[in-house]
Amino acid sequence: MAQVRVTRKERFNAAHRLHNPDKSDAWNRETFGKCNSANFHGHNYTLEVTVVGEPSPDTGYVIDLAELKSIMHERVIDIVDHSNLNLDVPFLDGVMPSTENFAVAIWQQLEGHITGGRLASVRLIETDKNSVEYCGE
Amino acid sequence: MAQVRVTRKERFNAAHRLHNPDKSDAWNRETFGKCNSANFHGHNYTLEVTVVGEPSPDTGYVIDLAELKSIMHERVIDIVDHSNLNLDVPFLDGVMPSTENFAVAIWQQLEGHITGGRLASVRLIETDKNSVEYCGE
Amino acid sequence: MAQVRVTRKERFNAAHRLHNPDKSDAWNRETFGKCNSANFHGHNYTLEVTVVGEPSPDTGYVIDLAELKSIMHERVIDIVDHSNLNLDVPFLDGVMPSTENFAVAIWQQLEGHITGGRLASVRLIETDKNSVEYCGE
Amino acid sequence: MAQVRVTRKERFNAAHRLHNPDKSDAWNRETFGKCNSANFHGHNYTLEVTVVGEPSPDTGYVIDLAELKSIMHERVIDIVDHSNLNLDVPFLDGVMPSTENFAVAIWQQLEGHITGGRLASVRLIETDKNSVEYCGE
Amino acid sequence: MAQVRVTRKERFNAAHRLHNPDKSDAWNRETFGKCNSANFHGHNYTLEVTVVGEPSPDTGYVIDLAELKSIMHERVIDIVDHSNLNLDVPFLDGVMPSTENFAVAIWQQLEGHITGGRLASVRLIETDKNSVEYCGE
Amino acid sequence: MAQVRVTRKERFNAAHRLHNPDKSDAWNRETFGKCNSANFHGHNYTLEVTVVGEPSPDTGYVIDLAELKSIMHERVIDIVDHSNLNLDVPFLDGVMPSTENFAVAIWQQLEGHITGGRLASVRLIETDKNSVEYCGE
Repeated sequence: MAQVRVTRKERFNAAHRLHNPDKSDAWNRETFGKCNSANFHGHNYTLEVTVVGEPSPDTGYVIDLAELKSIMHERVIDIVDHSNLNLDVPFLDGVMPSTENFAVAIWQQLEGHITGGRLASVRLIETDKNSVEYCGE
Repeated sequence: MAQVRVTRKERFNAAHRLHNPDKSDAWNRETFGKCNSANFHGHNYTLEVTVVGEPSPDTGYVIDLAELKSIMHERVIDIVDHSNLNLDVPFLDGVMPSTENFAVAIWQQLEGHITGGRLASVRLIETDKNSVEYCGE
Repeated sequence: MAQVRVTRKERFNAAHRLHNPDKSDAWNRETFGKCNSANFHGHNYTLEVTVVGEPSPDTGYVIDLAELKSIMHERVIDIVDHSNLNLDVPFLDGVMPSTENFAVAIWQQLEGHITGGRLASVRLIETDKNSVEYCGE
Repeated sequence: MAQVRVTRKERFNAAHRLHNPDKSDAWNRETFGKCNSANFHGHNYTLEVTVVGEPSPDTGYVIDLAELKSIMHERVIDIVDHSNLNLDVPFLDGVMPSTENFAVAIWQQLEGHITGGRLASVRLIETDKNSVEYCGE
Repeated sequence: MAQVRVTRKERFNAAHRLHNPDKSDAWNRETFGKCNSANFHGHNYTLEVTVVGEPSPDTGYVIDLAELKSIMHERVIDIVDHSNLNLDVPFLDGVMPSTENFAVAIWQQLEGHITGGRLASVRLIETDKNSVEYCGE
Repeated sequence: MAQVRVTRKERFNAAHRLHNPDKSDAWNRETFGKCNSANFHGHNYTLEVTVVGEPSPDTGYVIDLAELKSIMHERVIDIVDHSNLNLDVPFLDGVMPSTENFAVAIWQQLEGHITGGRLASVRLIETDKNSVEYCGE
């Protein structure tokens, strides 16, 4: 009854800016620097979703990774790919799209929709040097 | 008395197919799709083995990574490299070589053979997008 | 009238073995070593196709990379992905699937089918350490 | 009198969209698909600049790569990083920011400003799968 | 009140050798092999520091990664980059610079200096194949 | 009679410093900055050697990459791995080990020793951001 973690990686591209509308423009510029640029900037995001569970005796799968890919696309990628995270994404409405907040929102999009095993981790890589991970706690 | 995790990465190439001999050909085709191709396909696998323990005051090592490499080669790589996972590998006899099952089988090959620290994780990367991890639980 | 090179990368998985049927088994074993394993082994191949030409004033494209992706899939990837290169691929019939020969065969599959610019390079990466490139000469 | 090629890699993030203002909205949607999204999307760009020349007998350098880095920052990176390529970048004024056109524009920004050797190649990597190269011809 | 892990990656280059001065030269040669070379060798190290905490409602940050970068530079990178780990680094005085010991020493340099969230992991990648991680336990 | 380029990648670690003994210490410090550190620093070098030629009708190989690997090890890697480039390497005697000079010296070590095809390129990657290439001209 081994508990195995399986991870699927998908990529998408999006524009965003960091801006807290409850604060002054000066506060935003000082706090977020160039990440506050008025006309947005963008990233190639890498999303890694990990599911944990016991492999099925019939298939050897915790979850068919093709199915996990479909769930990730339907619930997240198809909504955010080639979008503006501040303007275009219903599940980010009212959420400042820091990588931290974005990862938590992706967890909420996926939770309850995983058809085998249980959601264990959402990792979001924003640049070569910056990444975040949320494990639902 | 710090507990440090040390990881060694090795690569190997192998052919396999996903096929459950207890099920019909139709079930296998529908369940595994192109991964059920009759004449096999293959992968460059990356194997990452993590050992945890206290560094030796004499060597600064949890385990000499050259020794961990030797153990990985003797117990796993030399057996599976340039092999057919369905036909050639004694320690996979009767095991459908999904990445999940393969990782668990590698853990069993390594457990009890680590000469410093204790085995903490076996991670197996099958493609750019798919990977699994087994931690012995 | 700038000449710009555009490159699209795609990945696929396949099984193969190196075996020259005109030679003895002993010659094959000695020449190809473990690459001659009877039951095949396999790789995650990365294919990079480069097309060169002048960007269109209307689109800024040498060739729409989504279109180049489609051509690569129709002419190459859909035929070789999850296949056995020795047994399943019509365009490799009678060709020993060394990386060199495979790259030349891919060039021949693509030549004359590129709808913008002209084919400049086929690069095929077989492992982390081994790759080949063919430029049609 | 060896001619050696030296390459410096830098990264930056930017938003853009593909849209030809001389064409109809319908043409733009059909031609560029999701790359035409109204509110922009974005990328982590990797820029690789290659300079060729004879290493100096005194320094062993074709060009000090710290100096090449400074030139790349002053002439390109500091202008485009965290920007909107359609709205914020003077040297892209009137240029549709396809990767092809962007690479040619970067070449023009750098040409004549390289202080050792001569500019040989500008390579711009837009995503894991798409890249372009311009060599000044 | 989500607990999110944020990771910053930085790179540096250093020389070192493995040599225990309390042991004989013969012991050192036999134990460390080529890592004991008298005139040092070196590595491009990658340092990944992970901080865990709750994102700020104002900024969406656990810690501003630009600030984490500054802390990593001030406390570690500026001291070890382009240095000799055996001769030049005060915080490694009397420590044999195995990757394990080095990671623990980096943890001690950072602990108490993280200005948001709490230090969760120090990962140090020494080569393509060898890495260690220390989590403070 | 296709001309195919085949590339083999190997990695090694070494210490070095940039210092021109014919110049003053002040000149060296100003010219080379931290690369002039007295006690050396180091790198994980990646060496990519490309050979071009016609694939053999018998083997499909331009050159057996296992043989190219052996030549690279015998002529270069075994001499420079875990060494100090300023002090330990006979073929760098009197050569300041800039990446440029090092690549040219590696070319000279390999030229005339390639047993199939002809040497086409030596590429030496010193850091994530810096690399050089020498093609014998």
